[in-house]
Order: sequence, then structure tokens, then C-alpha cells
Amino acid sequence: MEQNIRVVVDAMGGDHAPGEIVKGAIAALDAEKDLTLVFTGLKKPLDAELRKYKFDAGRVRAVYTKEVIGMSEPPVAAIRKKKDSSIVAGLNMVKHGEADAFVSAGSTGAVLAGGQLLVGRLKGVERPPLAPLIPTSKGVSLLLDCGANVDARASQLVQFAKMGSIYMEHIMGIKKPRVAIVNIGSEEEKGNALVKETIPLLKECRDIHFTGSIEARDIPYGEADVIVCEAFVGNVVLKMFEGVSSMLLKEVKKTLMSSLRTKIGALLIQPALKKTLKNFDATQYGGAPLLGLNGLVVKAHGSSKALEVKHSVIQCVNFSKQKMNEKISRQILAASTSE
Amino acid sequence: MEQNIRVVVDAMGGDHAPGEIVKGAIAALDAEKDLTLVFTGLKKPLDAELRKYKFDAGRVRAVYTKEVIGMSEPPVAAIRKKKDSSIVAGLNMVKHGEADAFVSAGSTGAVLAGGQLLVGRLKGVERPPLAPLIPTSKGVSLLLDCGANVDARASQLVQFAKMGSIYMEHIMGIKKPRVAIVNIGSEEEKGNALVKETIPLLKECRDIHFTGSIEARDIPYGEADVIVCEAFVGNVVLKMFEGVSSMLLKEVKKTLMSSLRTKIGALLIQPALKKTLKNFDATQYGGAPLLGLNGLVVKAHGSSKALEVKHSVIQCVNFSKQKMNEKISRQILAASTSE
Repeated sequence: MEQNIRVVVDAMGGDHAPGEIVKGAIAALDAEKDLTLVFTGLKKPLDAELRKYKFDAGRVRAVYTKEVIGMSEPPVAAIRKKKDSSIVAGLNMVKHGEADAFVSAGSTGAVLAGGQLLVGRLKGVERPPLAPLIPTSKGVSLLLDCGANVDARASQLVQFAKMGSIYMEHIMGIKKPRVAIVNIGSEEEKGNALVKETIPLLKECRDIHFTGSIEARDIPYGEADVIVCEAFVGNVVLKMFEGVSSMLLKEVKKTLMSSLRTKIGALLIQPALKKTLKNFDATQYGGAPLLGLNGLVVKAHGSSKALEVKHSVIQCVNFSKQKMNEKISRQILAASTSE
Repeated sequence: MEQNIRVVVDAMGGDHAPGEIVKGAIAALDAEKDLTLVFTGLKKPLDAELRKYKFDAGRVRAVYTKEVIGMSEPPVAAIRKKKDSSIVAGLNMVKHGEADAFVSAGSTGAVLAGGQLLVGRLKGVERPPLAPLIPTSKGVSLLLDCGANVDARASQLVQFAKMGSIYMEHIMGIKKPRVAIVNIGSEEEKGNALVKETIPLLKECRDIHFTGSIEARDIPYGEADVIVCEAFVGNVVLKMFEGVSSMLLKEVKKTLMSSLRTKIGALLIQPALKKTLKNFDATQYGGAPLLGLNGLVVKAHGSSKALEVKHSVIQCVNFSKQKMNEKISRQILAASTSE
């Protein structure tokens, strides 16, 4: 074994926990030979799921916890109070160096707050952004920050740009990723105070390929690889993406089922249409990493099924193999010493 | 004639000016008997278009201007310098009470800046929001502010909520419109500083039906009638709507043309699909009004064709007939004296 990459998986988080969570993570074992898994969760349901699969017992371990953090609990209070929950136990393993990464489809707030409070930031990183990959007509773009820290400062957006650029280059294999900032127009003088302050700082960065402003309209067309914005805006971009596409697809489906004629038409187009729509299914890329932590924390969708969990775990393996945190640290520290 | 409503139309603004602009405005004459039109623009092209149609000469007038404001000119400078442009001439007619409303598909920046600088705000209105109607699966919602003034204050968002509520009630006929503020979660403690400051103020308003936060994901499903947000966020919501839907429809079309099988399927579903997609065509509602001015300024899409121009002009007639500005003034002033 070249290196042993240890990923903790929150077996209790998400709409389909623990069944789909355990299934997906176990499936990752076959794909990644250097992977070992730790599941955190309640003994009874976790053991019941684990009994369903065959695997090398040396590569899978369970850490039993007695509490579960609910989706609607106030995040910071939950992290502080429920020390024996699957989320806190998993994050603490990363904190103490007993694991390299933590994956959860549970409460976003708790995972984000816990990642920052328990795992902690890499030296020099001001704020860790939540950075999901979003599907576009050209492939995929990284959107950050997408909800971790609202009301960011310009210097923080610059760090997001750097971390996102490293991610797209080394995890997604895109050379010289195009970095753009979300704006309400492409002209220089457009923008709010934060964007106007950030643009000149991004222009000065020698270590990223900054291409300027991107209007929200061009995001779905993949006009940039790394899309930088403040978390409130990023959350709106992501949720509009999900909302508009799900609403339109529902309307199209309703139309296809509206008469015999359209039903026959639907049968003819269905295989091709399914293939097209699959390209816009975000689950194939796994969850969203919280970048800039002392370790890796990945937040999978609450609705995650086995495939997204599997891809999230594989993402953790790639992240470790690529020594992403060393790369991020080096670039962030280089920037802070050159100032 | 019960009342004469005078609408100035910028014949030079938009991708299809002056042809589609003149055609659409003239078409509104048949729909609205109380309407008279003034076109502003260069003599030669404007006259050439006007010669194509038959109309009551007493209801249509041309005001010839010698300059045109381009789409990429810095807005404020253009408004100050090009006094003899179709936009400045039109706005000045509203300012001097020679017209009730102005419609333009030209430079958004110039129309917004000119509306505020030349026409001026109603007494008590802090900032005039740009308020487009956006199509949803339930009908239509009003989104404001959608790009007129970035970095708004909480008191301004409260005024947007009031003006939007009046608009939806009296122009769109929705009783007790549901007013919501764009947020990144539905829980009380979520939001950025601006949203957290605004929510308690909206709760105190007795004259609107405030329903709380709306996540961007729920906007396309029509979960609120009036959607309040800061202009940068509103611009992102609107542009994501346009971008995601246009991208997805392009991908679906490509798929439908990809094989003989899908082409036959496409023929069968096309009539029904067209009808569905028409519901999501924003042009049927006309342009976006800039609310809270001493008069009415409507910004139509740059890509407007005759139908959108016609609906924009009709919107101006309804706005005047409903005495919208008196209603807005009364409510805004009532709020400021009760404080």
C-alpha cells in the first residue's frame, strides 16, 4: 500500500442515511485501493447496514456515537452540546490527525460550523469557503464561497480565488483555470463596494489567471472555471441553478405527459434526453469541499444517494493524494509574506 | 376620451430599434383608446418607420433628436452630455409634465441614471428600485430591486416591499400579495447583516403581508408575489433565471435534433412544449418599471421585439389609470410620518 488515506463518513447524516451513505462509501473501497473507512453513527442502524456488505475488515471501522444532530438545530449550539454525535466525533478525528477527511450529508450549518470550530483553518487562511462544483454546458465550474461565511472582505475573496484555482488545476485537471468574479455587468465601473475593491486585488495576483467579471447569465454557459463571490451571492447562484432547472424540468415532464401524442413523442426522445440531463446532475461530482482547513471536510447534499457519497469519498482520496493542503498553504503563505 | 395618457417611447433604444419599437408602440394604440404616443429619435429612421403604419395623426407625435446614447457609454456622463438624445429628451418630457411615462429598450445604465437624475423621486422615496416581473410555475412574481442601486440600506428594502406590494395588488390584481425577502435559509438566524436588520422592520409593517424569508431555490416556484432584495442579489437572481433557462433549453433542443428518432419525437411534442415554454417568456409582461419616480420610467429588454414594447406601453397606461404614484406616495409618506 503506497499510502493509507483515512476517510471518516457520517453514517447518520442525510435524507437517505444510513442506508445510502454506507452503500456509497463501501463502493468507494473498490475504486480506491489506498482508502480505509471509518463510519461514525448509532450502533444499531450502522451495524445493520454494515452487515449487508462484504469488505476487507481491516479497511473499515465503526466508531459508535450516541447522539445525532438534527437538520434544524442551531448549528453552533449543536456542535458544542452534542459531543457524542456522528458529526462531532468525525470532525474530532480529523482534528487529532486520526483521519484525513470527513464526509457528511447532514446539517450544512453544523458541518460548516464544526469544520471551522473543531478542525480549524490552515495557517494564513482567513475563511474557509464552501466550494461546490456546478455543471455547465461546457463541463463544470467551481463556485466559491457558496454559503460558509456571509459578508466577506476583499482579501478573503482573493484567497477564495487562489484556493479555487489550485483545486481546479490539481483535482479537475484544468490547466490555467479561468478565474472570474460574479458581477452585475462586465464594465470596470460596475459592481457593489466589495466587488469594486476586490477586482484590483485579483488583477495583481500573479499566481492565478484572472479574467475579470462574469455576469450571472454566463455562469451556466461555463464562461469561467473558478467563480468567486461572497457567500450570500454564491448561495443565491447555486440555489437559483437548482430551482430554475428543477422547475423547468418538472414543467417539461408535465407537458410530455399531457396527451397521447406527447407521450409517444416522449418515448422517442427519452433516452437521449436522459443522457443530456445527466450532464447537469451535480451528484456525479460528489459533495462540496470546505477548503482551507487543517484536513478536509466535504459536505454532500442532504438528498445524497450512494453515488454521490461514493464520489465524495473518492474526492477525499484525490485531495489527499494531490497534497492539496500543502499546495494551498504554500500559496497562501507566499502571498502573505510577499505583502 | 376619459383621460389622455401620454407615453414617450425611445425609438432608438434596443437591438431591434427603431423597427420593432415603433411597430410595438403603434400596436398599443388599438388596445388602449386613451393613449397618445410621442416618439423620440433621429428624424430619418423614425419617419421611415412611422410611414409604414396607419394611425390617427392626433394620437402620435415625433420629437426629433440628434444624438443617440450607446449601450456601452458610461451612463451618468452620457445623460449629462447628450442632452439632445432620445433618452434625455424623453425623460425631460416626463420631468416637465409633458408626458406621463417613458419607455426605452436602450442602455439600462442610462435609463436608470437618467430616471433618477432627470425625472426625480417621489417625496419620501429613498431609492427607486427596478422591478421586473419574473415568470414562475404559479404565474408571475415581482422582483425588486433588480439592479438600480447596489448596497441598499434596510429602510430602502422596506420601501421596496411597500412599492412592490402596491404594484402587485393594483397592476396585477393580486389581493394581499405575499412579500418575502431573499435569504440563504428560512431560519430566523440566517442571513447577512442587511437581511438580519431588514426582517424585523418588515415584520412591523402593517400595510404589507410579509411572509418571511424565501430561498432562491423557491423563487422559480412562485412561493412569493413580491420578492425583496438588494440590487446586486436581485440582478444575480434575474440573470441566473435567464441564463439557466436559456442554457437548458438550448441543450434540450440540441438533444431533440440529435437523431432521426428524437427528431420524430420532437415533432410530436413541439406544439405542447411551445405552449409550456411560452409561459416562461418574460416579454409578455412588458419591461421593468423603475418605481417611486415623479412619473413612470419603464426599461424594456435590449432584445425587445414589438410585443414587449406594446406590453410596456400598455403597462404605462395601467400605471397611470390606477394612479399608482398617488398610492405609492400616500403609503410612503404615511410610513414616514408615523415613525
